[in-house]
Amino acid sequence: MKNIELPLLDQINFPADLRKLDQSELPQLCAELRSFIIDTVSQNGGHFGASLGVVELTAALHYVMNTPYDQLVWDVGHQAYGHKILTGRKAHFHTNRKYKGLSGFPRRNESDYDTFGTGHSSTSISAALGMALAAKRKGQHDKQHIAVIGDGAMTAGLAFEALNHAGISDTNLIVILNDNCMSIDQNVGALKEYLTHLTLSKTYNKIRRKLGRTLDKIPVVGELSKDILNHAKAGLKSAMAEHANFFEALNMRYFGPVDGHDVLKLADILEDLKAIPGPKLLHVVTTKGKGFLPAEEEKTLWHFPGLFDKVTGEIHKKVSAEPQPPKYQDVFGHTIIELAELNEKIVGITPAMLSGSSLKFMMEKMPDRTFDVGICEQHAVTLSAGFAAQGLKAFCNIYSSFMQRGYDQMIHDVVLQRLPVIFCLDRGGLVGEDGATHHGIYDIAYSRCLPDLIISSPMNEGELRNLMYTAQLEEMDRPFIIRYPRGQGVMSDWRRPFEEIEIGTGRVIREGSDIAILSFGHPGNFASEACDELEKEGISAGLFDMRFVKPLDEKLLHHIFQNYNQLITVEDGCRIGGLGTAVVEFMAEHKYHAEVHILGVPDRIVEHGKVEELYKECEYDKEGIVAAARACLGEKVLTIKLLRHESF
Amino acid sequence: MKNIELPLLDQINFPADLRKLDQSELPQLCAELRSFIIDTVSQNGGHFGASLGVVELTAALHYVMNTPYDQLVWDVGHQAYGHKILTGRKAHFHTNRKYKGLSGFPRRNESDYDTFGTGHSSTSISAALGMALAAKRKGQHDKQHIAVIGDGAMTAGLAFEALNHAGISDTNLIVILNDNCMSIDQNVGALKEYLTHLTLSKTYNKIRRKLGRTLDKIPVVGELSKDILNHAKAGLKSAMAEHANFFEALNMRYFGPVDGHDVLKLADILEDLKAIPGPKLLHVVTTKGKGFLPAEEEKTLWHFPGLFDKVTGEIHKKVSAEPQPPKYQDVFGHTIIELAELNEKIVGITPAMLSGSSLKFMMEKMPDRTFDVGICEQHAVTLSAGFAAQGLKAFCNIYSSFMQRGYDQMIHDVVLQRLPVIFCLDRGGLVGEDGATHHGIYDIAYSRCLPDLIISSPMNEGELRNLMYTAQLEEMDRPFIIRYPRGQGVMSDWRRPFEEIEIGTGRVIREGSDIAILSFGHPGNFASEACDELEKEGISAGLFDMRFVKPLDEKLLHHIFQNYNQLITVEDGCRIGGLGTAVVEFMAEHKYHAEVHILGVPDRIVEHGKVEELYKECEYDKEGIVAAARACLGEKVLTIKLLRHESF
Repeated sequence: MKNIELPLLDQINFPADLRKLDQSELPQLCAELRSFIIDTVSQNGGHFGASLGVVELTAALHYVMNTPYDQLVWDVGHQAYGHKILTGRKAHFHTNRKYKGLSGFPRRNESDYDTFGTGHSSTSISAALGMALAAKRKGQHDKQHIAVIGDGAMTAGLAFEALNHAGISDTNLIVILNDNCMSIDQNVGALKEYLTHLTLSKTYNKIRRKLGRTLDKIPVVGELSKDILNHAKAGLKSAMAEHANFFEALNMRYFGPVDGHDVLKLADILEDLKAIPGPKLLHVVTTKGKGFLPAEEEKTLWHFPGLFDKVTGEIHKKVSAEPQPPKYQDVFGHTIIELAELNEKIVGITPAMLSGSSLKFMMEKMPDRTFDVGICEQHAVTLSAGFAAQGLKAFCNIYSSFMQRGYDQMIHDVVLQRLPVIFCLDRGGLVGEDGATHHGIYDIAYSRCLPDLIISSPMNEGELRNLMYTAQLEEMDRPFIIRYPRGQGVMSDWRRPFEEIEIGTGRVIREGSDIAILSFGHPGNFASEACDELEKEGISAGLFDMRFVKPLDEKLLHHIFQNYNQLITVEDGCRIGGLGTAVVEFMAEHKYHAEVHILGVPDRIVEHGKVEELYKECEYDKEGIVAAARACLGEKVLTIKLLRHESF
Repeated sequence: MKNIELPLLDQINFPADLRKLDQSELPQLCAELRSFIIDTVSQNGGHFGASLGVVELTAALHYVMNTPYDQLVWDVGHQAYGHKILTGRKAHFHTNRKYKGLSGFPRRNESDYDTFGTGHSSTSISAALGMALAAKRKGQHDKQHIAVIGDGAMTAGLAFEALNHAGISDTNLIVILNDNCMSIDQNVGALKEYLTHLTLSKTYNKIRRKLGRTLDKIPVVGELSKDILNHAKAGLKSAMAEHANFFEALNMRYFGPVDGHDVLKLADILEDLKAIPGPKLLHVVTTKGKGFLPAEEEKTLWHFPGLFDKVTGEIHKKVSAEPQPPKYQDVFGHTIIELAELNEKIVGITPAMLSGSSLKFMMEKMPDRTFDVGICEQHAVTLSAGFAAQGLKAFCNIYSSFMQRGYDQMIHDVVLQRLPVIFCLDRGGLVGEDGATHHGIYDIAYSRCLPDLIISSPMNEGELRNLMYTAQLEEMDRPFIIRYPRGQGVMSDWRRPFEEIEIGTGRVIREGSDIAILSFGHPGNFASEACDELEKEGISAGLFDMRFVKPLDEKLLHHIFQNYNQLITVEDGCRIGGLGTAVVEFMAEHKYHAEVHILGVPDRIVEHGKVEELYKECEYDKEGIVAAARACLGEKVLTIKLLRHESF
């Protein structure tokens, strides 16, 4: 780590130290900060391109603003590495995204400089506006409030809702639009086209000024001409000042575009903006990955590259002796193409998760049937409902934790109309290093309460393929959730012929006699290993891959309750409201009296770390299941003993 | 009903009949349609102002467009009465919003002309765009797709997300912006100000044309002037054509504003628009309540007036001999003022439910502490989180079913940061005549899975006051849900001194011996009546107002399970995932073996009707509870008999 020279950065632990620098030293500081980020991320992993893109903006903000008194909200927050390094966390930055280490996102409980926790996009304007209105209420009229939001995040409805309010608010809110034309993939949509146009037309404000001057210069003949000219000017003024710009239409004063890598100019402009009253927006143009050429050139790849050689720019690939099972994502991506080739009614939709979901394969092959709508989960769902209303088979692929943002649309536009939209809920379950904001652990609970919805999860890649096949069959007339985790499955030989799965049927993986383990989705594999382990100890465990939490396989459940007194349920989701709950509801309804032990994510916030570390912490990895089985059976023996000594 | 003459309307059952009229007859038809709506709503109730405002637009659309082949989506849908009357439902229109009658909103299962079910706002552009893209895929290139959306609905993020996609879509989508400056209350926000400005500046397109002509008219001297003039024109063209308008910035061609009550002109313009390719927006200015003077003058009151005298305009007030208990809404509205006078940290937030929630009282008295953010649920929640992050006590009042739209913000911005936002979930439970889209029945299930969240519901007005008091105490450091139903409580003497409630404690309403009834919120009153009834039959029922479903009163639950073998749970929410589920989870965890019978909304879609009719249908009104108790105890006797003949 210490092979790089950081004479300025070494002196800086907090923004107060930064503010001791002469402004002319800022470019040098930025170079050092960039080196530090490159150095650390290359060896420790993490988000990369986004933070490099805002090095200058980060330095300028903390130099000009009186943080943490002035309040800075980083939208999404994966670009906040520079911010973390400059605000007391440099020495710990190598623990970024590691278990018990720093979070990869701003967190209120990590630093006073993290005014608002982020992770999901597009929340910053609302949050900063709330803070600005609160400051007003508290009489802190000198306090600055700054939201830094990307052009990708700006397309989400929440950001627009916030602008609509900010524009009429009596605050001095500063919104900084960090325009790099990217979400994780290339940003899309009309707003992006508009911003590109603004930028390509050079400085918008310059045009305005020039036009005003041009009209002044026109030599006029006679009074009539003067009137006409004044009329023209008035019209122009009205058109320009009040309608002329998307943001000014929303009553946000617009400044820019400015070069986001000119730290001296940024510092000057921010200084000026502090003194301008009212809500305003500064349009800053940046390059994602700035200063690291491979990252500038391949922005999506370098959004989150993994470990790499910072000199050659070579990304270290995990090498494995044996062929590895594919990621569930890739199975999804290849399978939807196979299905779409068979069924021309299929379309694919994603809100800005083209690469992450592997829907990019379909986009490459069938661009007219693949829709990346940008960071617009709500629209993705209602658009899919529109497709389904016209008989198309819409595969709407959304990460589980982002589906929370389309929840009303799932209920109102899909479920209540019983439209057969197919929700592929990617990254269902604990996601690992992204942490609490990204864990997809509430989806089973929040969807199980909705009528007529099919909720399924595959235990392996073959099951994923068959669920996808089943969901798109012509006769399927109901909404259908297929939920699967981030990362690798378990089958290397996964590309097998499609088989229809009967809705609401589970699978008997193995029968046992002492205890029944009921699993949902991928954790069935942990349970399977646990069964092997238990067998060695002389405990005979049955394993049942429920496959659907709705509708439940009631026949299978009756079989289980009639044959086992001890049940363990295992799911990669919150313990409240999921499979375990469904099983105890069934038990209560049918008046069975078994003991049911629910394994899953406990009812508290689970932070970041490797998924294996988190499964262990939450006690539903192989060892957790084995331990639970032992405990249950220990208790069972005890219970039986007690009952024998009691009269009924 | 037949006291009005409707010579044209009488001939029209479907749009095909309408299209037989000469265009010149449309004004007369509109007058008749308006009379018919006034006549029916005055006698049967329903939404009023919105449908009157779009009479001309409705007639023009069905006259010009080839519905139902051409597809028309009414945003929200409470303005679709004229549409329903002209599309085969005139004879049944008096059943509107009645149990088993027509829905007050478009429903796909009611008519082919209802292309997409609505109820919640701002879905129409997404849905129509999905249909338009589907039509393209199916080769139906002549098909028109029209979304009619109000200026209130346009502020919701979903609408913006849809515009962002529509603008770059290769479709001929027509968005009709029905601009009446209203949500239910006056519309608010920067976009509304902008639209008003557009309208007040007269016809925007006219200005554009005029400015072009003005520049042409300026007499110029010499070649230099000509160059300058051309420069000015080019700049103007660029500014006007590409930046000049909020919607055109999003690449939607903008037309308007036009008078929405000139049916002949509307028909002409719609005819023209059919031929113009690409996505476009027609800005139509209408008056809510048009043609019924009292409704034009007091728009909020006449949004949903109840029954009235169509001649005098007098609204029939329900007259009651005895003093009636207040609405929960009014108790909330008056109580928040009392609390805000005691605690200056309190602010009130609502997304466009100012009147419905009775937060209007606070807005009148404390406008600087009351925020109506328009139809922006997401923003309302994250704004509240911003307030709470700065130590304010934010009461965020949202109807339960609309809270679905702020679900991610509830999780990501409030719960994961443990910010003490106070969610007042109004209209929790079945809401009655508004039907399936508005029932607030999933909230308990979708919030119970979230960590550290307090979820409470008052059984009466006094409890509501005390929960509100408790939630705003300085030491309360967690998010807090207070959920209550639409309509009247049970106490006439409700304005009592505040008392703190210990978090997670229920109340013993009465003890019994045969069966325990556990209730959550207002249905405790039904249960109380049921207990009286059961007592007459010699059945001794205990009644426990759980008050919190999270955290549960574990002490009380142990008491109940130790003393009762038969339990009934009652809640005004879905049976899956709510109080009943929490109780069976508790039972499983603590290895109790009672019989638990869960009453609540069954796992299917419940339509509209009076709440009493719906409670009855769902079997948790007094009679339903009595019947359940009888059935449980009948079974219990049987079970005991069987057990006596069995060996253990």
